[in-house]
Amino acid sequence: MKAEIIAVGSELLTPDHIDTNSLFITQKLNELGFEVHLKTVVGDNQDAIAGVLHSALGRSHLIIFSGGLGPTEDDRTRAAVAGALRRRIRVEPAILEALRRKFASRGYPMPQINERQAEVIEGAEVLDNSVGTAPGMWLEQNGVYIVLLPGPPREMRAIFETQVLPRARRLGKGRRLVTQSFHVTGMTESEVDSRVAPIYATFPSVRTTILATPAHIALRLYQWVEEGGEPSDLQELSARIQEELGDAIFTATGESLEEVVGQLLRRSGQTLAVAESCTSGIIGMRVTRVPGSSDYFLGGVLCYSNALKRLFCGIPADLLAKHGAVSAEVAEALARGVRERVGSSIGLSVTGIAGPGGGSQEKPVGLVYVGLSDRGRTIHLRRIVPGDRDTMRERTAYFALSRLRKFLLEQPAVRPTSGK
Amino acid sequence: MKAEIIAVGSELLTPDHIDTNSLFITQKLNELGFEVHLKTVVGDNQDAIAGVLHSALGRSHLIIFSGGLGPTEDDRTRAAVAGALRRRIRVEPAILEALRRKFASRGYPMPQINERQAEVIEGAEVLDNSVGTAPGMWLEQNGVYIVLLPGPPREMRAIFETQVLPRARRLGKGRRLVTQSFHVTGMTESEVDSRVAPIYATFPSVRTTILATPAHIALRLYQWVEEGGEPSDLQELSARIQEELGDAIFTATGESLEEVVGQLLRRSGQTLAVAESCTSGIIGMRVTRVPGSSDYFLGGVLCYSNALKRLFCGIPADLLAKHGAVSAEVAEALARGVRERVGSSIGLSVTGIAGPGGGSQEKPVGLVYVGLSDRGRTIHLRRIVPGDRDTMRERTAYFALSRLRKFLLEQPAVRPTSGK
Repeated sequence: MKAEIIAVGSELLTPDHIDTNSLFITQKLNELGFEVHLKTVVGDNQDAIAGVLHSALGRSHLIIFSGGLGPTEDDRTRAAVAGALRRRIRVEPAILEALRRKFASRGYPMPQINERQAEVIEGAEVLDNSVGTAPGMWLEQNGVYIVLLPGPPREMRAIFETQVLPRARRLGKGRRLVTQSFHVTGMTESEVDSRVAPIYATFPSVRTTILATPAHIALRLYQWVEEGGEPSDLQELSARIQEELGDAIFTATGESLEEVVGQLLRRSGQTLAVAESCTSGIIGMRVTRVPGSSDYFLGGVLCYSNALKRLFCGIPADLLAKHGAVSAEVAEALARGVRERVGSSIGLSVTGIAGPGGGSQEKPVGLVYVGLSDRGRTIHLRRIVPGDRDTMRERTAYFALSRLRKFLLEQPAVRPTSGK
Repeated sequence: MKAEIIAVGSELLTPDHIDTNSLFITQKLNELGFEVHLKTVVGDNQDAIAGVLHSALGRSHLIIFSGGLGPTEDDRTRAAVAGALRRRIRVEPAILEALRRKFASRGYPMPQINERQAEVIEGAEVLDNSVGTAPGMWLEQNGVYIVLLPGPPREMRAIFETQVLPRARRLGKGRRLVTQSFHVTGMTESEVDSRVAPIYATFPSVRTTILATPAHIALRLYQWVEEGGEPSDLQELSARIQEELGDAIFTATGESLEEVVGQLLRRSGQTLAVAESCTSGIIGMRVTRVPGSSDYFLGGVLCYSNALKRLFCGIPADLLAKHGAVSAEVAEALARGVRERVGSSIGLSVTGIAGPGGGSQEKPVGLVYVGLSDRGRTIHLRRIVPGDRDTMRERTAYFALSRLRKFLLEQPAVRPTSGK
C-alpha cells in the first residue's frame, strides 16, 4: 500500500525550518505495512494545497496531511481539501462546545477566531485532539483515505497514536516492514561495505543501507513481511553479518557508544576519569548523557592550557617542553595522571590539533593522541582525524570512546563476563 | 519568480533521513529573488520522478533537482528528466575523459559503472563538479529552467555556488529577499513576542518570525525588495526592535553566544576557567568551538562527583554536607575555587539536577545554580530549567553563558569599551 505525506505551512519553505513530522509518520506507517513513496511541503495557499492533493489522489492509497488546521486565516488545509474533494464544510456544534470547554478550563473565553476549528468536511470522521484545540479528520474518497492532522508535533503524535493508528492498521492488511540495525565502530564506511556487501548481495529481499555518522557506522536491514510471515531472510542475513563483523558491532539494539561503555564499566565495577584537551568537554558531556552515569564517571579535567595539564594531571614541564602538548608521551602521562589524581580505575585522555590554525608539517591539523591507563598498563593511539574544527572534535571524541571500549574488552577481568 | 525543489532518493523516504539540501538551496534562491513555493521528496523511481517533474513544469519557473546522479542503477534522475522532456541522452566524451583523469589522480582506474556519469541530456549545459564525480546539468524547456544537482551536500553546494548562482541571478530580475536576524538571550519566546509584536505589526511589508532554540531566541525579519529598491521598512523596524530589546540582543550579525562571550573576554584581556557538574563539559565544549579560544579559555574541571569538587576546587566537605552539592553556597565556592586554583580572571560554575532521577520536593529535577566569580565579587543565580535530561543540560549551558555575558557587561572595566 502506497502512502504519501503532505506537510502544509509557509514556514516550512523558509531556510530556517524543516518538516520533521514526516519522520515520525513514516516510521509508524512502515510498521503498519505502508510504503511512503512521496513527501511534499506546500505553503499556506489553498490552490497549491488542492493541486498537490489532486496529484496525490491518483497515486496513493493513503494521504496524510500535517499542518494548516489552526484558527487563523493562514490555515487553509480544511478549505483546500474540501474544495478539491468537492465537499461542503459545516460547523459541528459538539466540537464547538468542546472547544469552549477547553478554553474555559484554562480560565479564559474562546476567541471567536477559534470557531473555525469546529469546521468539519462533509463525511469526515472527527479525530479528537486531547492535547490541543484543532481536531483531525479521516476521510475516504473512491477508495483513497485522506487524513488531516495538526502541525504541532505533540498534537500530531497524540492524534496519530490514538486515532490514526487503529484505522490505518485495518487498511495495512498485516503487511509490515521489519528492520534491524547494527552500529559499528572502529571501521570506515567503505571497510564495512566491502566486508558485508558480498553477504547482503545474496539476500535480494532485504534492503541494506550503510550510513556514516560521526558516532558510528549504521548498518540497517529492512524486509517487508506479509501477514503471518517471518522475516527469515533478514534473520539469516543478520546472523551472517554479526559473524563477519564480530566485536566491531557495539550494539544490535540501538544503544549509543557511551551507553555501551557505561555498561562495561558498571559490570566490571570500574570508574572513569578523563583529561580532555582538544575535545574540551565533549567526552565528559557524552558519557554523562546516560542517566546514572555518576555511578562510574567521577569527572575529569578540561586541560586546555599547558598550565592545567601540569596543575591537575601532574605533567612535568620538561615533558611538555620536550615532546609538545600533542604527543604520545603527554597523552599517556595525562591518562595516568588523571587516573592517579582522581583515584579512578581508568584514565582516558585526548590531546590534538583541532585547527584551523596551530598545525605544522610534523604535527598537522587533525593529529590526535588518545591515552588510556589502568592499573596494569598505559597505552596511546595516534590518528589523523579529518574534517573541520567541529567535525574533527566530534569524531575524536567518538574515536576515544571507541578505543576505551576496546581497552575495556581487552581487560582480563571484563572479557569473560561481558562476551561481545 | 516561483521555484520548487525536488529531492530524489529512497533513503530520504525512510524514518532515518531528511532532506536538508533544500534549506541551503532555499536560502540562496531567496537571496536571488525566487520564492520556493513547493518541495517534494521522491524515491529512486523513474516514473515517480517524471511524474513530479510533469506537475512542476506547470507551476514553477525554476525547478531544482538534488540527488539521483550517481553511477549506480538506483540513480534515475537523468533518465527520468530526459524521458519527461522527451529528449535523448548521449555520452559526452569530454566528461568521460575528465572522469577518467579524476580517478587516475586518486590512483585507480575508473570503474565501468561510472561511465553513466558522463551521460548528458540533449540540450543541457553541463555544470562541472569540482569536488566529486557527478556533473550537474542546466536545461530550459518552454521558458522553465530545470537544474540537476548531485545529492552529496558538499558537491551540491559547490556546483550551486559556482555555476547555478550566476545563471539563476540573470533570471531573478533583481528582486531580492533581504533578511535581518537578531539573537536574543535572557528572555523567553513569549516575552520577546509580547515586546516586539506591537512594533512589527505596524510593518506589514516585513515578515517577522520568532524561533526558540536551546541557545537563544531568534527574531528574523524578511522583506522582498524590487530591483533598485531599498529595504527601508526592514531597516526602520530593525532600529525600533533594537531600541526595544537593547542588551537582550547579543548579536545582529549571527555570532554565537560563545563567540560573543569570547570577544568580551578577549577585549578586556581576561581569562576564564569553568567548574561543570551537571553540564559536565557542555560549556567547555561550546567555548572552545571558537578558533583561538585558547587565548582566553584556560580550561577547567568536570566536577561530576563530590570527590572532584573537593579535590580540584577545594570545596570543604562540611559545606557539601551542610548545603548539598546543588546549592547556592557550593555554586559560589566552585566558581571562586576554580578561579583561584587555575589563576583565571573569571570562574564560572554549574551545579544542578539533570534527572530523570535524583530530584526531591525541596530540590526538584531541573534545579540549577550558576556561580560567577571575579576578583571583585562572587555571585550565584538559581533557576528551574525544564526539559528532558539532554534538553535541560543544553539549556543550562546556554543559561550559564548568557549570565557570564551579563556578568562581563556589568564589570566596570568592560562596560565602557564594549558598548552593547
